[in-house]
Amino acid sequence: MHDNELVLLPLGGAGEIGMNFNAYGFGPPDERKWIVVDCGVLFGRETDTPGVDVILPDVRYLEERRQDILGIVLTHAHEDHIGAIGHLWPKLMCPLYATPFTARLIEDKLAEAGLQDHVRPKVVKLGGKIKLGPFDIEFHSITHSIPEPNALVIRTPLGTVMHTGDWKLDPDPLIGEATDEAEFRRIGDEGVLAMVCDSTNALVQGHSGSEGDVKRGLIELIGTLKGAVAVTGFASNLARLQSIAEAAQAHGREVALVGRSMHRITAAARETGYMKGFPRVIDEFEAADLPADRVLYLCTGSQGEPRAALARIARGDHPAVKLGQGDAVIFSSRIIPGNDIAIHELHNQLSALGVEVLTVEDHFVHVSGHPCREELSQMYRLIRPQIAVPVHGELRHMSEHARLARSLQVPQAVVVQNGDMLRLAPGRAMVIDEAPAGRIYMDGRVMTEADEGLTRHRRAMAFAGFIGVTLALDAKGRLAGEPSYFFEGVPEEVQEPVRDAVAETVKRHNPKRAGEEDLKEQVRRAGRRAANDAWGKKPVTRVEILWV
Amino acid sequence: MHDNELVLLPLGGAGEIGMNFNAYGFGPPDERKWIVVDCGVLFGRETDTPGVDVILPDVRYLEERRQDILGIVLTHAHEDHIGAIGHLWPKLMCPLYATPFTARLIEDKLAEAGLQDHVRPKVVKLGGKIKLGPFDIEFHSITHSIPEPNALVIRTPLGTVMHTGDWKLDPDPLIGEATDEAEFRRIGDEGVLAMVCDSTNALVQGHSGSEGDVKRGLIELIGTLKGAVAVTGFASNLARLQSIAEAAQAHGREVALVGRSMHRITAAARETGYMKGFPRVIDEFEAADLPADRVLYLCTGSQGEPRAALARIARGDHPAVKLGQGDAVIFSSRIIPGNDIAIHELHNQLSALGVEVLTVEDHFVHVSGHPCREELSQMYRLIRPQIAVPVHGELRHMSEHARLARSLQVPQAVVVQNGDMLRLAPGRAMVIDEAPAGRIYMDGRVMTEADEGLTRHRRAMAFAGFIGVTLALDAKGRLAGEPSYFFEGVPEEVQEPVRDAVAETVKRHNPKRAGEEDLKEQVRRAGRRAANDAWGKKPVTRVEILWV
Repeated sequence: MHDNELVLLPLGGAGEIGMNFNAYGFGPPDERKWIVVDCGVLFGRETDTPGVDVILPDVRYLEERRQDILGIVLTHAHEDHIGAIGHLWPKLMCPLYATPFTARLIEDKLAEAGLQDHVRPKVVKLGGKIKLGPFDIEFHSITHSIPEPNALVIRTPLGTVMHTGDWKLDPDPLIGEATDEAEFRRIGDEGVLAMVCDSTNALVQGHSGSEGDVKRGLIELIGTLKGAVAVTGFASNLARLQSIAEAAQAHGREVALVGRSMHRITAAARETGYMKGFPRVIDEFEAADLPADRVLYLCTGSQGEPRAALARIARGDHPAVKLGQGDAVIFSSRIIPGNDIAIHELHNQLSALGVEVLTVEDHFVHVSGHPCREELSQMYRLIRPQIAVPVHGELRHMSEHARLARSLQVPQAVVVQNGDMLRLAPGRAMVIDEAPAGRIYMDGRVMTEADEGLTRHRRAMAFAGFIGVTLALDAKGRLAGEPSYFFEGVPEEVQEPVRDAVAETVKRHNPKRAGEEDLKEQVRRAGRRAANDAWGKKPVTRVEILWV
Repeated sequence: MHDNELVLLPLGGAGEIGMNFNAYGFGPPDERKWIVVDCGVLFGRETDTPGVDVILPDVRYLEERRQDILGIVLTHAHEDHIGAIGHLWPKLMCPLYATPFTARLIEDKLAEAGLQDHVRPKVVKLGGKIKLGPFDIEFHSITHSIPEPNALVIRTPLGTVMHTGDWKLDPDPLIGEATDEAEFRRIGDEGVLAMVCDSTNALVQGHSGSEGDVKRGLIELIGTLKGAVAVTGFASNLARLQSIAEAAQAHGREVALVGRSMHRITAAARETGYMKGFPRVIDEFEAADLPADRVLYLCTGSQGEPRAALARIARGDHPAVKLGQGDAVIFSSRIIPGNDIAIHELHNQLSALGVEVLTVEDHFVHVSGHPCREELSQMYRLIRPQIAVPVHGELRHMSEHARLARSLQVPQAVVVQNGDMLRLAPGRAMVIDEAPAGRIYMDGRVMTEADEGLTRHRRAMAFAGFIGVTLALDAKGRLAGEPSYFFEGVPEEVQEPVRDAVAETVKRHNPKRAGEEDLKEQVRRAGRRAANDAWGKKPVTRVEILWV
């Protein structure tokens, strides 16, 4: 008979900013009941994972324990927290819990995945509570860069966990209330075993700043502009959208929303009551008929996404919106790592049109939604946990977060990686087991495992191209016809030497002495070597036999 | 009979930071004599140009006028100013002019390219002059992030051009003298027609800062560190290397150079007299035997280059240098756009070893070598040109630079792109012609043109893989044997549907009705469509016929 244990098992987010997926288990090792907090995606990048749109956590460990999962609780509606639901719910098939706005966007996800008739999120009111087996879960409103961010207080018979979700301390969040620090202090007063906390900005000094200040910055900046203005940012930051719209209004400009996710988010916000203070918006074609100084376009595409509204505007192929000399584009956003080249290329295209580009580099037009070091310190002072568990970060962020927590006299700070099963209680926190963990790629519509190596193989072809040689053999293993070739992404100059080397090799082939596998391997090596001699690079090289 | 004209023809650098190559022509249109200023490379990036190490300007316009090129003048020894000499000199075959340190590194380039017996750079002393036909060229020492940066004053019968090269106004450059502003003012007093000027930091407010201040920052920071210290930065910034070495010395640490380019640069510096004030360096193996707090490693690899010293140290496979808990790595460098992911991955690996990572984000350990807006303004006040020609920038930098110049009352500021032939005199500056211009990729050892599309094709394979189908046909055009396949980077699930679609299509093939080109195209389309249906992505698909 084993004792109860409380464990944390991150399957995503402990090693990357994205793909957040944390499971909490309670019970003796073989009878644990589980809850999951968040179920998000990580976006693929052309450099690392060409052709992969989104990356999911590998949840096979929980899939095998599906009957013991009591529910998935979603802290807020960002893609890196809810984006994997459509892909992973069929594996886990458990109830979903979220506050109204988040639930509304989850419904979109489920509908996209054709799951709307199988599951609907259970709506928890702001500040609400749910009980899932041994877990008593309280939702506490906090501030972030989307409506309805929640920190979860998870009470168990072995202690309380504060799971922060994504947060900051914004004294003037514009939508929702400022974080109630007294409430968080009371939670701390009760005694908190562990705080599982956002590490995104653990390397950034100071305070993340306030949406209220950004609003004032935008009003001031937009007042200085004479031509048409387009502002781009993250559509899910509704407070920001409203600030921009109010800044437009303050200077007599009409607002048009441009881009699909602007409409998607504002529709969800309207249905959940968050659009009440939002200025009227007009159609983008209607806006385009107004004088330039009477209009402001609120656009998707701040990360240089080639199919988003702003990229189309910059290429001059947007059906409604044209910008040129005298107009301005404000990037009310930051550069997400890996997107710098695409964003700068967008700046270049806008510059070529004569459009002025205004960014956070020179203007106060953006703040982060995650806590910088001052805010982290403040939260540790309020909650005073026994154990700090940094999540939502790469190793560099989590390590520094742990260092900061220790400097604030948190007795124990533990850096975990996806798949580490961390026992929080009883006893000192320690990794007691390792669960299978990894990344699943959505490669087109097919789920593939990262270690299958498909993207690595494609990157090898991106680097040095592909050579395919087909040899026809008759029933006696003798060559028939001339070898046939594919040269893909390989310079012209390389082809002749490869053909010569292959011809030379097949000429020496004696079907009585060597089998076809031997022939294939010899031809492959000869072709690859000849390519390398001519080019200085080794293409991916394959040989196939066609039996005639 | 035509009149003399003075023209500027940038073939590189007007549209990118890198690949600097500016030609100046003087004479009537058909009898122009040319000089070239700088001959640099741009580094390829996996995202845009996988498998391409360096990118060169397309100089065919000048190659066709080779007999009229009087010389190539190199302003300083950075790769984006001299790196293309080994590749392009055989096309241009003209004399090379440079100051001693630059000339010494050019000799390395020529030797690498096997050209050392064909050409040697002509050495110009600091502050020296050369006369090349109608061009009187004066070298003026300026400050930058490498020894011996030069601005060129190019006097012609139609006016004087100030070609700044890369520069900043560093009051305390540590190596070389601070820029003599009085001298630049005297040049301005003479009357300058055009200033062709560095745009790198045209978007950055304020002043770039001084190497002297970085030195003081490094001394202070290194004094706080207890374990072994590694510092990484650009090897060509000899002043920085010396600052780091002196900071080590100040705290009783021995210095070891780790990485090939550290040795290459210091060797060139030693031969040209720049190592006189440099502290003694010890061998890396010898250093590794010292106590951790007695050693500082000066390492290559600040951009996350996987084969550089620091990446090997972070992976734990450097033969001499091991770092761990309690040690620190200082990145005395910035993140070059496009390298953020690789650099952060390096930070993560170092964090995993327990190594503390210190960067310019939190510590004063780096300054840029290029002029920020205050310095640009100051230079315009000194030189007072009639025409500002921003170069050394992307469009966004050059546009903003031109805007700044106009705001400083420069009568004309012209944004040009590679290949624009800009007449500087007589008359108002204007683009009078377009020369072929573009990018040449060093793809392995083969030069390919950007618009050949080899890298685009390889990127398509990186995104969606490759399917090759080989069909054997007999002399009568009838199918022989089963089709043979290559599936590269394509998920398993996609293969069966493609085989079925191909089988279906070839079954319908009637050699009397349709030729083999028609067969190939039908099979290609059927295969690609089947892949798309199964996968949601369209692989690069090719079909070949093997005649038996």
